[in-house]
Amino acid sequence: MKINQFAYVPTPHHQIVKELANSRFLSARTQKMADPVMLYRALLLKFFMEKRQSRAVRIQKVTNLMATATLNAYDYTTTQSIVTKTAFYNVALQLLGFQVGLDFELDHPFAAMAQFKLPIANVDDQLSREQLVDAWYRLLNTRTKFGQTLIDYLAGEGYYAQFYDDQNLNRPLFFNGKAQAVFDTSSLISDVVYVEAPLDTDHDGQRDLLKAEIIRPANTEDGLKVPTVFTASPYDQGTNDEAADKLTHDVNHPLSRKQPNQLTYEDIQASDEQPKLPAPRKVNGDTDVAEETFVKTWTYSLNDYFLARGFAVVYSSGVGTKDSDGVRTTGTRAETLSATAIIEWLHGDRTAFTNRTDQIGIKAWWSNGNVGMTGRSYLGTLSTAAAMTGVAGLKTAVVEAGISNYYDYYRENGLVVAPGGFQGEDTDVLGELTFSREQSAADYLKIKDTWLDQLKKLTSGQDRDTGNYNSFWDARNLLKHVNIKCDMLLVHGLNDWNVKLSHVWNLRNRLKKEAITQKLILHQGQHEYLNNFRSVDYTDLVNLWLSNKLYDVQNNANDILPDVLVQDNAEPETWHTYQDWGNPSADTYSLSDSRFTNLNENNVFSDHLDDDLFKNYVKDTAKWQRALFNKSHTKMDKHAIQLISEPLKKDLIVDGQAKLTLSAASSETIGLLSAALVDYGKAKRLTAVPQILAAQKIITGYNWRKDNLREFTFEKKASTYKKFTDAHMNMQNRQNSYRVDDLKPGQYYTVELAFQPTFWRLLAGHQLGIIIYATDMDYTIRGNQDITYTIALDESKLEIPFLPSDANAK
Amino acid sequence: MKINQFAYVPTPHHQIVKELANSRFLSARTQKMADPVMLYRALLLKFFMEKRQSRAVRIQKVTNLMATATLNAYDYTTTQSIVTKTAFYNVALQLLGFQVGLDFELDHPFAAMAQFKLPIANVDDQLSREQLVDAWYRLLNTRTKFGQTLIDYLAGEGYYAQFYDDQNLNRPLFFNGKAQAVFDTSSLISDVVYVEAPLDTDHDGQRDLLKAEIIRPANTEDGLKVPTVFTASPYDQGTNDEAADKLTHDVNHPLSRKQPNQLTYEDIQASDEQPKLPAPRKVNGDTDVAEETFVKTWTYSLNDYFLARGFAVVYSSGVGTKDSDGVRTTGTRAETLSATAIIEWLHGDRTAFTNRTDQIGIKAWWSNGNVGMTGRSYLGTLSTAAAMTGVAGLKTAVVEAGISNYYDYYRENGLVVAPGGFQGEDTDVLGELTFSREQSAADYLKIKDTWLDQLKKLTSGQDRDTGNYNSFWDARNLLKHVNIKCDMLLVHGLNDWNVKLSHVWNLRNRLKKEAITQKLILHQGQHEYLNNFRSVDYTDLVNLWLSNKLYDVQNNANDILPDVLVQDNAEPETWHTYQDWGNPSADTYSLSDSRFTNLNENNVFSDHLDDDLFKNYVKDTAKWQRALFNKSHTKMDKHAIQLISEPLKKDLIVDGQAKLTLSAASSETIGLLSAALVDYGKAKRLTAVPQILAAQKIITGYNWRKDNLREFTFEKKASTYKKFTDAHMNMQNRQNSYRVDDLKPGQYYTVELAFQPTFWRLLAGHQLGIIIYATDMDYTIRGNQDITYTIALDESKLEIPFLPSDANAK
Repeated sequence: MKINQFAYVPTPHHQIVKELANSRFLSARTQKMADPVMLYRALLLKFFMEKRQSRAVRIQKVTNLMATATLNAYDYTTTQSIVTKTAFYNVALQLLGFQVGLDFELDHPFAAMAQFKLPIANVDDQLSREQLVDAWYRLLNTRTKFGQTLIDYLAGEGYYAQFYDDQNLNRPLFFNGKAQAVFDTSSLISDVVYVEAPLDTDHDGQRDLLKAEIIRPANTEDGLKVPTVFTASPYDQGTNDEAADKLTHDVNHPLSRKQPNQLTYEDIQASDEQPKLPAPRKVNGDTDVAEETFVKTWTYSLNDYFLARGFAVVYSSGVGTKDSDGVRTTGTRAETLSATAIIEWLHGDRTAFTNRTDQIGIKAWWSNGNVGMTGRSYLGTLSTAAAMTGVAGLKTAVVEAGISNYYDYYRENGLVVAPGGFQGEDTDVLGELTFSREQSAADYLKIKDTWLDQLKKLTSGQDRDTGNYNSFWDARNLLKHVNIKCDMLLVHGLNDWNVKLSHVWNLRNRLKKEAITQKLILHQGQHEYLNNFRSVDYTDLVNLWLSNKLYDVQNNANDILPDVLVQDNAEPETWHTYQDWGNPSADTYSLSDSRFTNLNENNVFSDHLDDDLFKNYVKDTAKWQRALFNKSHTKMDKHAIQLISEPLKKDLIVDGQAKLTLSAASSETIGLLSAALVDYGKAKRLTAVPQILAAQKIITGYNWRKDNLREFTFEKKASTYKKFTDAHMNMQNRQNSYRVDDLKPGQYYTVELAFQPTFWRLLAGHQLGIIIYATDMDYTIRGNQDITYTIALDESKLEIPFLPSDANAK
Repeated sequence: MKINQFAYVPTPHHQIVKELANSRFLSARTQKMADPVMLYRALLLKFFMEKRQSRAVRIQKVTNLMATATLNAYDYTTTQSIVTKTAFYNVALQLLGFQVGLDFELDHPFAAMAQFKLPIANVDDQLSREQLVDAWYRLLNTRTKFGQTLIDYLAGEGYYAQFYDDQNLNRPLFFNGKAQAVFDTSSLISDVVYVEAPLDTDHDGQRDLLKAEIIRPANTEDGLKVPTVFTASPYDQGTNDEAADKLTHDVNHPLSRKQPNQLTYEDIQASDEQPKLPAPRKVNGDTDVAEETFVKTWTYSLNDYFLARGFAVVYSSGVGTKDSDGVRTTGTRAETLSATAIIEWLHGDRTAFTNRTDQIGIKAWWSNGNVGMTGRSYLGTLSTAAAMTGVAGLKTAVVEAGISNYYDYYRENGLVVAPGGFQGEDTDVLGELTFSREQSAADYLKIKDTWLDQLKKLTSGQDRDTGNYNSFWDARNLLKHVNIKCDMLLVHGLNDWNVKLSHVWNLRNRLKKEAITQKLILHQGQHEYLNNFRSVDYTDLVNLWLSNKLYDVQNNANDILPDVLVQDNAEPETWHTYQDWGNPSADTYSLSDSRFTNLNENNVFSDHLDDDLFKNYVKDTAKWQRALFNKSHTKMDKHAIQLISEPLKKDLIVDGQAKLTLSAASSETIGLLSAALVDYGKAKRLTAVPQILAAQKIITGYNWRKDNLREFTFEKKASTYKKFTDAHMNMQNRQNSYRVDDLKPGQYYTVELAFQPTFWRLLAGHQLGIIIYATDMDYTIRGNQDITYTIALDESKLEIPFLPSDANAK
């Protein structure tokens, strides 16, 4: 167990005293106490909530804690004249949920604390009054055994709730730079408004009204202005799973030869011309009172956490979703404007109405004008898209696993390449999935023809026949127009094969040119949220970040948050900080280098499988993957080139984007190439999916949302390999993804395959594998065509960036 | 998709009118409306909550629904002069969450309704005013696409919350015999009290104080008396997982010969003599106000559901748990009294204190004296135990997967046989697991010696050396003393290999002798809760039951609830009702019957495996199970007898307890026999674990606990077999579990193995398999001894009870 912490703000004593007073840990009386022991007793008794429980009960609870091997904490404070460091941390560990005898021993708490990576305040063996105050503050800002700071745990127990009636308590209240759960979530107000977007995507001659769902603290009714955490989720109003499934494309068809072209980027560049907009609706008066309310089923638990802490939360789904106007466009500017329209309303720059018919205006009068966006996947994509517009009011986006270019989501180097787990999906399928207007029968009747027409445009525009980049895709490159004005927190899973690493890599590199602050967190998940893990204080980091960006709290968030925080793949619960991601220089290896063993002793492979085997692999792609990567002989031996390095003498970390340059020939006029880098070595690896350590253990506020505590742990059994990056290419697109060249059978061409960027530790003793193959059952189309590929290994090379051993990991 | 419903109470029109008025669907004005169309419009507008949303918004929402292929529901009510049955059910299906085009078509809603098993009111093609009222009531009491009744869904949306300020609304409110979510869960009150139990299990000369945690509606402060849903959970204050793991017994050791005995039951009968009790504490005054409060992480979502509906919920963990006195005893009367003491306090018959030190008494002044128990596994076990005492106040227990005899949990026929998934667990391990006083360092210091002493007594008493039934186990047979006075609802999973089916079977059969009402639900889960499944209205059934038992609502619960409700194993979402479980007569088959193929052509098998294979199977018992049961040849061929029937000509349902009578010889003076009945046939089978259909989709009250909607669905791949029952025996215990006989090598003995009772449909074309083996890697000790077993197949027989084809399944 490792309780890492990155969001703690070093705080001077005078500020600590002020914050402890503001949070009611120090009173006028206890601030005057000179005796550390008396003060210690007072603090312990306050911990058990004097306004909610009797003194006898609180004394009993302090009595349950051991300060030394023989004295309980209460007796300690009544019989001893000093507070020793050991006693303080013995009690501290128990308050943090650690168990005597199981997690630590009373005679040496510091050994356990070091092991759990828990902070120890800089105090003497006997704590002075000031040291006690400082150590208590540090303790409240230390994370418990169950993944929350102690003060957040206490808030869940009702610590702040006991002051709900205290008008003098600051609301919002910040403690160590982070907003506290001082808001009563039982009185949250839920409003619906309809924002009039500068769009008419359904071409009905009226601007598209977009439904926005607002949850805000009741204190806003008394004049408090709050910032907004905004999640733009096209899934939020429901999804058409079955209809989308039906649209899913068959991928078991042959690769076709493409007519060569001479296209340049200018030829396929998307026009920036925008359609003419209808005039805005007339506003028939104004009101401050919403007339529609709502209840949500799924909510993002991180957003819920902020609802207890003085933030409003807004959900909106955008064009083409239930109760809104318009049609889905899958990734265009119209979807971006769906998100920015909401932000503009929150910032006072756009009209919203109380309902869809009466045109009564309603302002976000409760908003302080500052907005931060959150959400993963499509939600994160829309955060990125909104941020790139520079829309006023948007102060930051926390982008989790967002797309930065739709072409890279559905295509790769002129080839149809699926997001992992979604073979056959494309922009039309995603459009259908999220077009939740379909779920309202009467509304769908009105829009059906327009929608079917729009669907056809998506299907034709995406052009699965060629897989080429074209103006359709160019209009869906979110990095094309960058006018960003807000700071960015990017979060991505190093095992995310759905939204792959190139998205965050390209976004981050593009943002380096901008005058903003950006931070990056790379975790070991696939396509996961990160706000309920024990080994990283992600929630606290986001709190620090949003308190800074949206409430202008001077908490040094830009300095405190590591520039790059990476979870180690080879050791559980281990996180490293770096200044950057991606070593610009790389080591180069010829593929005929004698340090690589050619396992199948071939440089030729056929992409054709026996019909039965092919069908079997289509049915069970995991079986195909095992056969492909396994070092022992399998049915895939003749269908791939498998190069395996010598065992590594020391740990090596692949840091960034590796590149494979192949001199390759196809036996036909068509060809596709796939390549993977594989970490070979028998080892326990982290679970693919986070495990639940304790169900419902995280309480995000008093009587508020519970969350499961989760972590990646080691799999029970060791595995022998793991693919950590891959690449795919249509050989006709060897220049770029829109330019098509001829492919002459038997002729060698130099092709360059850029792997998905990564950050991957190969342990000493492990071997690096380079696997070269063609059809990728999980990602590419699967034609099972009779094509033979030949690679001139001595004309081919791998360039791979390793983290220098003196890099600033901590 | 099948939306089954068993908890609807047929209700006459005059009662319907009254209930709709009480629940505010009919007002003084609408009750007078003669025109069905006007009334229909009024009801639809009320559905969208007139007190919370403007008329314009509500009209918009009604406008979103289609009544016919061309008319939306609002226009329908303004342009039509009649309400047709088709229009009504078109709209009804949309209100229930079904989607036009996807789930049903507007021109024939009834086809979909039949398919989904949705009820249709008995109305004419044109609804009269009365029929409209009746159909609307039936609709509100119909289950949605997402597993709740429509009225419960509406409550989650805030329907009843709009009347929180209405003092005239009945609280509690019953609708169709079920308590409604009319209580504001944001103002629930949480109290801790310490009940003084008639126990001194830690022998400290003071009666054991037991902590009880109470959650009750705020309305109790204004004089409302409410019943209590009580869950006695020894896990609730935390568990010592690591310490328990360390105590877990090694099972890889040889079976030893037991000295024969002549014991009769009288010899091993447990004494009923009880230890002398210390006098109760002096009561130093009384108060109505608790002085300790609490926050819970895990709660049972079914209990939470009742908190919104006018029930208090109490959790208590019993002797030896954190903040209580005493030691764990794993299944004795002391644990039973831990539960009944709480009930006695709730019924006004026992003292509780406000804290552990001051002896200030506090009564359950808010309680109406009626208590129902809930909970699964150990929790259900304690419900059974409490019910058997006849304690006053306990009106019913809903027992989910409860133990009825601890011997049957840890032993079987003189053999150490583990609960599934818990090899090596025993009463000492469970005691250690639940002895949460250990988590409080100071408290543990005081009790440690007493506890280690008690642990030793558990270890010695359970006697793993022989596996025999003895007075230790006799004291843990919950069916020994039966003084039951309350009605029982028993719930068990037909795939529960942890608490096996014999527990509910024996309990149910014993209860048949008592003058109580009992009901049984058998589902296809392992060890699962059932309150959030789409295919069965379990929550509603329990609501009907508890409203009847605890609020004395005359809702015919005893007649409405089926006596036996069984989920089909061969078809998803299918439930059948029966009058009884277990056919008393059985078909008998000789094991040499020619209709059985002896797959390995043997009647002899060795229990000894090569060392490597043995270790491999110990590591991966699933692999062992596959080898054992697979019909193709495997390494287990010489280690089992595999008899496979002819393919069945028609479906057969095994209904109750099958029995195998073997004429068997061991080559040694020791011997153990295992047997399994296996359903052979390639088929898709239900998932072992319920799948989440929709996360957080169930809202149990307004702004209240969310729950995942779940269901067992078909596995994606077909499987070829499934074990559906088994049995184990020590051959020295062929008479019974305490009497030990000699075993002479080579001599044939008649032994009778009673299988776990079951209810299992074998589909036509499938084959019944009888597998006879010795060591069961998953359950028995694993000695890998060199023993050969011989079965005289023509002297052996299977007796198997089948459900008669004319049984009253619906």
